[in-house]
Amino acid sequence: MVQRILNDPDNIVDEMISGFLKTHKDIVEATENNRVIKAKNIPKDKVGIITGGGSGHKPAFIGYVGKNMCDAVAVGEVFSSPTAMAFLDAAKAVDQKKGVACLYGNYSGDNMNVKMAIKMAIKQGITIKSVIANDDVASAPKNQREKRRGVAGEILMWKIGGAKAAQGGNLDEVIAAAQKAIDSTRSVGIGLSPCTLPAAGHPNFEIKPGMMEMGIGHHGEPGMEICSLKTAKEIAEKMINIVIPDYPFKEQDEVVVLVSGLGATPVMELYVLYNEIEKLIKTKNIIIYKAYVGNYFTSLEMKGATLTIMKLDQELKKLIDMPAYTMGLKQK
Amino acid sequence: MVQRILNDPDNIVDEMISGFLKTHKDIVEATENNRVIKAKNIPKDKVGIITGGGSGHKPAFIGYVGKNMCDAVAVGEVFSSPTAMAFLDAAKAVDQKKGVACLYGNYSGDNMNVKMAIKMAIKQGITIKSVIANDDVASAPKNQREKRRGVAGEILMWKIGGAKAAQGGNLDEVIAAAQKAIDSTRSVGIGLSPCTLPAAGHPNFEIKPGMMEMGIGHHGEPGMEICSLKTAKEIAEKMINIVIPDYPFKEQDEVVVLVSGLGATPVMELYVLYNEIEKLIKTKNIIIYKAYVGNYFTSLEMKGATLTIMKLDQELKKLIDMPAYTMGLKQK
Repeated sequence: MVQRILNDPDNIVDEMISGFLKTHKDIVEATENNRVIKAKNIPKDKVGIITGGGSGHKPAFIGYVGKNMCDAVAVGEVFSSPTAMAFLDAAKAVDQKKGVACLYGNYSGDNMNVKMAIKMAIKQGITIKSVIANDDVASAPKNQREKRRGVAGEILMWKIGGAKAAQGGNLDEVIAAAQKAIDSTRSVGIGLSPCTLPAAGHPNFEIKPGMMEMGIGHHGEPGMEICSLKTAKEIAEKMINIVIPDYPFKEQDEVVVLVSGLGATPVMELYVLYNEIEKLIKTKNIIIYKAYVGNYFTSLEMKGATLTIMKLDQELKKLIDMPAYTMGLKQK
Repeated sequence: MVQRILNDPDNIVDEMISGFLKTHKDIVEATENNRVIKAKNIPKDKVGIITGGGSGHKPAFIGYVGKNMCDAVAVGEVFSSPTAMAFLDAAKAVDQKKGVACLYGNYSGDNMNVKMAIKMAIKQGITIKSVIANDDVASAPKNQREKRRGVAGEILMWKIGGAKAAQGGNLDEVIAAAQKAIDSTRSVGIGLSPCTLPAAGHPNFEIKPGMMEMGIGHHGEPGMEICSLKTAKEIAEKMINIVIPDYPFKEQDEVVVLVSGLGATPVMELYVLYNEIEKLIKTKNIIIYKAYVGNYFTSLEMKGATLTIMKLDQELKKLIDMPAYTMGLKQK
């Protein structure tokens, strides 16, 4: 039995949204569709930025709605895609006749529903273009990048796309910046313990004590290797050796590094892990321009972490530096 | 076996500090004492705000060092007090001959070490005055408030004391504001699963599946009652019925509400819990001026949550509204 604070598991998403809206009144507001949340005080005449995804990944996805990131989000059930109607309503909520950029992760349900939303939007005179995050190196070989899933790299995609729109970029410029961001980004995850869907009540996969899973997905999708639990230093080496050569990141590259916990790993361990990652990256003469460490994209109460690295150019550097104010990312 | 990302458990605090300093270069910096971290760019001629406590409670304590909150922190081993020397060095790092306010939690080790640090400071010409947080209602009866422990209410005390110092308050004014903050604050915790000290490797207490512990402390200190695991609505009622009558908070009071996870409880459940707490507070005609929901003060990978309520007056309202910029609390 999983020890949870909830009422009816079938109602957890609606109750979570209700609590979220009450807490963050200064950042977000409800819309007519109760599975769509939008930012408050969206600046005039800008491209709308939307996203959407399953629940249980907090702060993703609703935690990245706010100033200079996403303008609206479509909220799905736990670990399952929002409906096409929710994506459409998110677009309608933020459309200012400048077009809407839908920046989301590569999962079959999301792909299907975003495509349907785009078709419906055309009929209503709204232009939606999309960027599909596929930063998870472990989910498919490099020559099949279109099959790779989106993981914590999505946050950097939202940061860049949101900043470009805030700068006044047009739809094509916003899409190009978000696409460049995700094309320059690689991630890998490690799992130390499983999670349990509230409605199921038992884990849908297993990680034995003393073992870990390299390359695990954000919903427990199988990784590349199950091995004995390593030290932080060894884990960092394994993660770096997957992420760095794939892009590949090279000497003198300037990068953003994001280490996210998967939920139940204490934050102090994330800093221990980042401490090792930073040393390894330095050894490779790659320059860390900015680092984010914390619970940025979780999987309920899974233990483990993800490593995400994004290569910067002059444009991306300016956009990553732009202030942001959301529940999940606040930056001066 | 607990599934952790670490190297040597005896080295976890030093490695965590190293990773923390590398990540938050814009907010904090090292000092000569490797167990003391200070804020960057502390404004001139202000009262210094320091705190300190055991590790494993992230963002507490080092996550609240930064603009308009704490100026320096003394870092202890996991769940154990910093040394007297660390408290003293924290004071020395921020002393500007305006005095230093040490705002910390009521635990015997911290009390002893802060008292020693104050004595040593006098000899060096530094004035330290202290406020001891004792917001945990469950830890002693109301007529023995001096025995109560400090829990998540400490964050509100740091917010208020830090803001008062930033406003230019003198030492006595800062101490008075912080004391008023904690005197107006009450908290209670619930535990759903235990945590394990990295060096011990096994939990030092037990919560059976299907059960929960009302009034549990931040280190698993025994609470008031062990009962079957309730729904979010019932848990909210139990927490409210402990916190509200103790102060007591009354009709038309304006309050801050802080719901913190203990580490491994998914954040979506905290919003579900807050959704119920908000309804109950409204029913009592108490006015929620501001709410914080998230992992603000954790206990490694414990499952559970704390509820903290602080009554506001005009002064506290202005101070709680002041911007802050720390790893754990960023507010415009």
